[in-house]
Amino acid sequence: MPSPLDAPTATLADFVTRADPAAVPHTVRHEATRSLVNVLGCALGGARDAATRLLWSALQPCAGAPAATLLVTGERTDALTAALVNGYASNILDFDDTHLATVIHPGPPVFSALLALAEWLQASTVAGAGGAGLPPAPARSPVSGDDLLHAFLLGMEVACRTGVAIGPGHYARGWHITGTCGVLGAAAGAARLLRLDAARTTAALGIAATQAGGLSEMMGGMCKTFNIARAGREGLAAALLAARGFTSSQRALEAPRGFAHVLADGLDREALVGELGERWEAGRNTYKPYPCGIVLHPLIDACLDLVQAHDLQPAQIAAVDLQVHPLVLKLTWRTDPQDGLASKLSYTHAAAVALVQRDAGVAQFSDECARNTQVVAMRSRIRAVEDASLASDQVQATIRMNDGRQFSTRVEHACGSLDNPLGDDALSRKFRALADPALGAQQAQRALDLAWGVATLPAAGELARACAATAMA
Amino acid sequence: MPSPLDAPTATLADFVTRADPAAVPHTVRHEATRSLVNVLGCALGGARDAATRLLWSALQPCAGAPAATLLVTGERTDALTAALVNGYASNILDFDDTHLATVIHPGPPVFSALLALAEWLQASTVAGAGGAGLPPAPARSPVSGDDLLHAFLLGMEVACRTGVAIGPGHYARGWHITGTCGVLGAAAGAARLLRLDAARTTAALGIAATQAGGLSEMMGGMCKTFNIARAGREGLAAALLAARGFTSSQRALEAPRGFAHVLADGLDREALVGELGERWEAGRNTYKPYPCGIVLHPLIDACLDLVQAHDLQPAQIAAVDLQVHPLVLKLTWRTDPQDGLASKLSYTHAAAVALVQRDAGVAQFSDECARNTQVVAMRSRIRAVEDASLASDQVQATIRMNDGRQFSTRVEHACGSLDNPLGDDALSRKFRALADPALGAQQAQRALDLAWGVATLPAAGELARACAATAMA
Repeated sequence: MPSPLDAPTATLADFVTRADPAAVPHTVRHEATRSLVNVLGCALGGARDAATRLLWSALQPCAGAPAATLLVTGERTDALTAALVNGYASNILDFDDTHLATVIHPGPPVFSALLALAEWLQASTVAGAGGAGLPPAPARSPVSGDDLLHAFLLGMEVACRTGVAIGPGHYARGWHITGTCGVLGAAAGAARLLRLDAARTTAALGIAATQAGGLSEMMGGMCKTFNIARAGREGLAAALLAARGFTSSQRALEAPRGFAHVLADGLDREALVGELGERWEAGRNTYKPYPCGIVLHPLIDACLDLVQAHDLQPAQIAAVDLQVHPLVLKLTWRTDPQDGLASKLSYTHAAAVALVQRDAGVAQFSDECARNTQVVAMRSRIRAVEDASLASDQVQATIRMNDGRQFSTRVEHACGSLDNPLGDDALSRKFRALADPALGAQQAQRALDLAWGVATLPAAGELARACAATAMA
Repeated sequence: MPSPLDAPTATLADFVTRADPAAVPHTVRHEATRSLVNVLGCALGGARDAATRLLWSALQPCAGAPAATLLVTGERTDALTAALVNGYASNILDFDDTHLATVIHPGPPVFSALLALAEWLQASTVAGAGGAGLPPAPARSPVSGDDLLHAFLLGMEVACRTGVAIGPGHYARGWHITGTCGVLGAAAGAARLLRLDAARTTAALGIAATQAGGLSEMMGGMCKTFNIARAGREGLAAALLAARGFTSSQRALEAPRGFAHVLADGLDREALVGELGERWEAGRNTYKPYPCGIVLHPLIDACLDLVQAHDLQPAQIAAVDLQVHPLVLKLTWRTDPQDGLASKLSYTHAAAVALVQRDAGVAQFSDECARNTQVVAMRSRIRAVEDASLASDQVQATIRMNDGRQFSTRVEHACGSLDNPLGDDALSRKFRALADPALGAQQAQRALDLAWGVATLPAAGELARACAATAMA
């Protein structure tokens, strides 16, 4: 038998096919559950966003028969469109998860594909084997919550390992890495949920790889989240095609004109398929406390700390000096954002809302807040300089007041980082803050309970349906 | 007003919006008509291919309400899925068109998107303004054949200009250029058919650019054509989104982290938007006489010439020596292809079928022929060496017989090349050879007549419906 490193795409597919849920460490499984709670909350919060609704309204005329639920609205559509729209909802608030080593947001593309597929599979299993024209239905039915959780974990693992294996040069070229790697994760997870064999799972990865795309130029606009949503849809499509016997390259990731060499500088095979089942990249996922670019989080922490500790009045603040990790100016250089989407990638805006409104939630990154005169005035007083000695979760901040006083602080590990993670309670609070306005408190709590207990759910489809506001009636 | 070169994406979009059909030279319009005849014939020939049927069967459960016709079968589905499936049919035989300077096949992605959209727009116009949830219907209705032809021409122009403007380094990296540039062409053509303004057409190009993808690793397999089919679908989706007001970068092609810098070595702005309306890349389209990789065409010409001129018996052929353009060995290196798709990119197979079967049509690149024992035996006698002094439409061939005789020939311009193009009659014969088995002779002739006369068709949707075999009854 050849070394796993000789055929990394096939090796990865084989792992996805065979990985045993019982062999996954409890801490990793729990992290996957936390990722699920987080992404579902984000999707509920983003489902009624104007851009999400626009996407759905444009594509609805082409959408297929009801098989999967659109979160919150409860409308039902085909699984591919549901993956796209729910995936869009999951990321549009910029509040989702981050695998810090790669800056991939693994939750949205993988979870949106699997949630739609799980519901569809369950419905068609109930309707009879192969119902609704599905790929041959599995013998075991319906899809359990544990199946969903495990496939979600494996899909995230594939996305994050791929991101690590193609190195930082990929992102530096201008690729939106959640788009390019997310489609592989979604395909892998969907292949697992469909119980495809190794050959078809390899094909699914190939069909996904050749659809990989997404430009970083789209950051700050509607297409940024479209890159991520598409990854979920196309990954699911790849698995559906492979399930029917559509074929692809067996070495889509490693071939000379394959994914890693075309979109990056090559493939670190050891990073991709070394220590499979032992090293878990998906176990290193993190969750945002603030709905904006993650590189902004340290400076938000610092501004919130200072303004609250010293009860600083915005009108008395003369200037704010920030020493920041170089990525802050590279990714969030916008000093005068004109709308909510752009404000999520603006260091001046992030600091300004923390200082003016003493908060950095969904409302602080809305269109309205981007044009708030107090916030706009404060933005002009924010200065940032690069400090390459800082880690990406660190910041040094100094506020100078009109009366000459100065206040300084240094954040060592931003809230939500690997070394200062959101706890389970904080994740629950975040979920409720997002879900309560969408579903009402009672139904939001039920959805949250289902999400934390996903591994014990007999039927995974219940999760999506419990998140439709119409279910309240 | 800034120079057009300062904002090439917007300049290109503005041209697509405003280009006047009456200002297009007759020869260019005629070339667009020839492209349409050719691609429609290819689609009819490929509609019943096993891979096309597989694609449709896998995605049918997710497909939407009937708005556009699937060629030959006459089934109707949503416009996006129709664009995908018909686009797949157009290319699967590897018999389509080639813009030689870029090796783009402009016809399949652009035409498949527009044919589906034209039919849908017409149906919804008949049903009332904005019917079927469409973007606001145009004042003028229905979509005429001339509208379709002009949008097709403009879409091909955008695809080919983009290909020229990003240079040969793009293809050399391993990008399947019809996928990456085709999506822009499809978006541009669809935006024109939807009569979007310049801002929304710019957005459509941006939404398309961030979906661009397709790996050359997929050559020789089912995903090769999927790359092309997806370009048509995603380009149409981009225009539908832009029509609803979905926004994107205004400089998706030229931005530092935009299309040209991420997927290629940069943008030649003059090549992209210089001489708009004067230089027509779409007027330089060519059409294949043989359904296989275009770089194989010179050697097929040579082998057919020699075997027929000297009535050579295959069993008496000892060896065949070919001097070929370097791309032949780079792209069609497969010496022992196992199926029809792979045989289309095999120089030994292409030469062997010409010598053994004295033909190089659809039957010669089938699964069956790839395993034909006489053909397989002949393949082992074919040798090729690179000759960098040859143009891509040239070859030097020598056949040595068992009895010691030698026959040589040199092809200066392969059949179907720019300097030796297929005439209109040859295109009609090609169309009939593809369409007759699909539609029957009578209906095939009617479809051919409609295609040649597309500019005079009152309603473009008629074209698709005339290509459904069920219409024969």
